[in-house]
Amino acid sequence: MSDQILAYEDFQPGRRFPLGPTAVSAEEIVEFAREFDPQPMHTDEAAGRASILGGLAASGWHTSAMLMRMMIDSYLLHSLSEGSPGIDIMEWRRPVIAGDTLAGHSTVLEARALRSRPGIGIVKFRHELENQRGELVCLSENAIMFRMAVPAQARTGASA
Amino acid sequence: MSDQILAYEDFQPGRRFPLGPTAVSAEEIVEFAREFDPQPMHTDEAAGRASILGGLAASGWHTSAMLMRMMIDSYLLHSLSEGSPGIDIMEWRRPVIAGDTLAGHSTVLEARALRSRPGIGIVKFRHELENQRGELVCLSENAIMFRMAVPAQARTGASA
Repeated sequence: MSDQILAYEDFQPGRRFPLGPTAVSAEEIVEFAREFDPQPMHTDEAAGRASILGGLAASGWHTSAMLMRMMIDSYLLHSLSEGSPGIDIMEWRRPVIAGDTLAGHSTVLEARALRSRPGIGIVKFRHELENQRGELVCLSENAIMFRMAVPAQARTGASA
Repeated sequence: MSDQILAYEDFQPGRRFPLGPTAVSAEEIVEFAREFDPQPMHTDEAAGRASILGGLAASGWHTSAMLMRMMIDSYLLHSLSEGSPGIDIMEWRRPVIAGDTLAGHSTVLEARALRSRPGIGIVKFRHELENQRGELVCLSENAIMFRMAVPAQARTGASA
């Protein structure tokens, strides 16, 4: 991304932003899991292979946090983001295994001005991450609030 | 929790498990945010106070990871968990600010055997976390798979 700061008006439906690529190491998987999700398949190689996940697998919550980091690096940190009220969908479709590389994109689904907060709009995104074999590993949808570059009053010409 | 290992059969609808309490420090908020969500309101006290969040606020993804840790400590680590396909609902209702203490509970909403995976059932939970003022800060629902203590064949008396 350039130095341009993205405002609400820049998130038109259909616009896509690239995510990643991000390599996932065994060390990162174990470090996150020890703090937040110390189930054996996330902290031990042999236990991971013996589980239905088939290898040392990232906690789904770690995959979600990595998705957030990719959103930050692609567009959020250089935007007028005001945060998010939550996650609408988070599907961990396939295991993320040590050594995988994740990449994908965020697509703007819809955008609308908030009546309750003048000058702020809310943008709904779909986020998709695939592994290096092109398999979908994570599908998510959530909404993020952004300040407008041009206040609604100025755009509509209304006076106070 | 005792040393008892919880199986699918232990998660009857209506059963509740306590979560927390967990204190949230400024150091933890900043450490998580620097790695996964380095927006100023999550990494800088003054920026947090100037934002609509009103203080140095945990990333929602950090709150979600802390919820997972509380689930682990309350019941998941001492269970026959086989992981989760994702999150159905994750609402960050109010900011989690440095110095807050979070506590709540997980409630079993429904449980059913999986036809596709004999010996495994799926349990849907609602998770709620409140701060020290009794305000709801996080509401989530997700499903987790557990192995059965007694295989379905043995329970129904069916023969192969």
